[in-house]
Amino acid sequence: MSDTNRVWRLRKRPVGEITDDVLSLEQEAIPEPGEGECLFRLNYLSLDPTNRIWMSDMEQYMEPVAINAPMRGVVCGTVIKSNTPEFKAGDIVSGIGSWADYQIGSPATVGLLGEVGDVPVIDAFGTLALVGPTAYFCLLEIGDPQPGETVVVSTAAGAVGCLVGQIAKIKGCHVVGLTGSDEKCQWITRELGFDAAINYKTENVAEALAKTCPNGIDVYFDNVGGKILDECLKQMNLHGRIPTCGLISQYNATEPVPGPYNYDLILMHRLKIQGFIILDYMDRYPEATEALIGWMKEGRLKARLDVSEGLETALQAVKKLYTGENTGKLMVRVKDA
Amino acid sequence: MSDTNRVWRLRKRPVGEITDDVLSLEQEAIPEPGEGECLFRLNYLSLDPTNRIWMSDMEQYMEPVAINAPMRGVVCGTVIKSNTPEFKAGDIVSGIGSWADYQIGSPATVGLLGEVGDVPVIDAFGTLALVGPTAYFCLLEIGDPQPGETVVVSTAAGAVGCLVGQIAKIKGCHVVGLTGSDEKCQWITRELGFDAAINYKTENVAEALAKTCPNGIDVYFDNVGGKILDECLKQMNLHGRIPTCGLISQYNATEPVPGPYNYDLILMHRLKIQGFIILDYMDRYPEATEALIGWMKEGRLKARLDVSEGLETALQAVKKLYTGENTGKLMVRVKDA
Repeated sequence: MSDTNRVWRLRKRPVGEITDDVLSLEQEAIPEPGEGECLFRLNYLSLDPTNRIWMSDMEQYMEPVAINAPMRGVVCGTVIKSNTPEFKAGDIVSGIGSWADYQIGSPATVGLLGEVGDVPVIDAFGTLALVGPTAYFCLLEIGDPQPGETVVVSTAAGAVGCLVGQIAKIKGCHVVGLTGSDEKCQWITRELGFDAAINYKTENVAEALAKTCPNGIDVYFDNVGGKILDECLKQMNLHGRIPTCGLISQYNATEPVPGPYNYDLILMHRLKIQGFIILDYMDRYPEATEALIGWMKEGRLKARLDVSEGLETALQAVKKLYTGENTGKLMVRVKDA
Repeated sequence: MSDTNRVWRLRKRPVGEITDDVLSLEQEAIPEPGEGECLFRLNYLSLDPTNRIWMSDMEQYMEPVAINAPMRGVVCGTVIKSNTPEFKAGDIVSGIGSWADYQIGSPATVGLLGEVGDVPVIDAFGTLALVGPTAYFCLLEIGDPQPGETVVVSTAAGAVGCLVGQIAKIKGCHVVGLTGSDEKCQWITRELGFDAAINYKTENVAEALAKTCPNGIDVYFDNVGGKILDECLKQMNLHGRIPTCGLISQYNATEPVPGPYNYDLILMHRLKIQGFIILDYMDRYPEATEALIGWMKEGRLKARLDVSEGLETALQAVKKLYTGENTGKLMVRVKDA
């Protein structure tokens, strides 16, 4: 065990894009766990859109990271030393931690990753940390897909979207994904088992939806809003459900963005639209973990990771989330578990 | 008992507004009930927006009325003669019938109005026929208002809106109504017990909502869409619910109407928006009837009827629904029960 620790600290709050002076990587002493705490070594750091929110002092669901404090992250690590009966050396834990080689955890901040069997820890963590439970609860609780129903998902090759489609297949649905390249279309149909894919950049979306969803759409898992939402609204069946997980078509808008022009169909077709943020389901994580790991062990749920190598790459890597450069769930690998 | 019968028959399908040549009032023989049927005399005829839909051959939830057939209506009548054990002479029945003095009913088309006690039948029927169950299920099933929560309702002095506000008060909510005149504002606060009213034509809606809803909005019962929906979205609390019962701000639009500009708040505040049509709850009518009648008997639920006198006035009266001339639930009185 090395006696130095690298820690990314927040130096200033970003304005617009994340710039290189927002975080700095420091050499520090390895901390000592107190009573009821453990020390763990970082294996993997999950990089997620919410990181940008934590850096700012906007109104949010947790306290913003304080200036000069270690940057907060969703982490996976191996316990080195434990002063709590909850963990012992060698345990793999995950939860809320910081961008640092060595850090202190407690049962209030991390939990055991659980039995993953033959599934590599990096895959399990990549799926279980945030995107898996998001796909699981948002699709199943709000979308409530029934066997034989048609589920359409946008950003279908993205970290959440690709899981949504696979879970919908597991639930016995006809699944169609929208994504932005022919390569991604092939990946979700050939590798992940989607029934059909639509390249929204090159195809007529209305025609392609009509063709791939001959029985109409029962659940539209919305990650984008905008024109694709409007087209899906027109083809929704009576009592259809639209879980709203993201609205990336409008995040960078500088003018007010109108809602869907087919809003009236919410009434006419008695649709349900409901927004989702995983925070509201934190107390139900174990349920999602068990189901997701089970499907991964059976080979029915595949993840795609975009892995950046080394803690020192974290600042450059996190920027990719906001430029769309990542392909799959973005992570940093520090040391394999 | 007279031996002639007056029957309104559909002569042509309306294009745009309902014109005088769409229906004609005929003198006919009183029909004879067959086995399993009853003959009843019309007491009250409910006039509802859906009448216009039944006259046309657009795609709809029931068959359109056939050309030259009696016009369909929601009716209340007194049984004269019965060939079914379900009804006996003197019973008050209500259900789907026609615009005629005398007509045939069966357990498949009408049911007993039930015990109304001291509540006049016309008030009970006016509330129970369509608007009461709409307010009841749309508010309670989709809005799910909890004691102490804030409920805002648009078209609060309308047939459905005034009931929604009163039911929300019964459920222990803080209730604010939006309506279009000071007289209506006074009526819903002084007579119906709303906590506050906003005249959306003369007040700044955003400021008035902020003032009358100091704890934010938990349920916005939407009858109108448009700008009022947009203002309410901005003041919705986390996990707020928006039952969508009508979108009258846009029914006469000739250009595409954009959805709410604050659509993104559905995600950020994890809101639920869901469309409602009473058809989906027909099998649960008895539950609403029992509750509504109970509240009416206790004097906790008041209706306002706009009564047109005489079956011969039905054609002119129904037009008022589409010009907004009616004040309260529109009905025709033929003969008091």
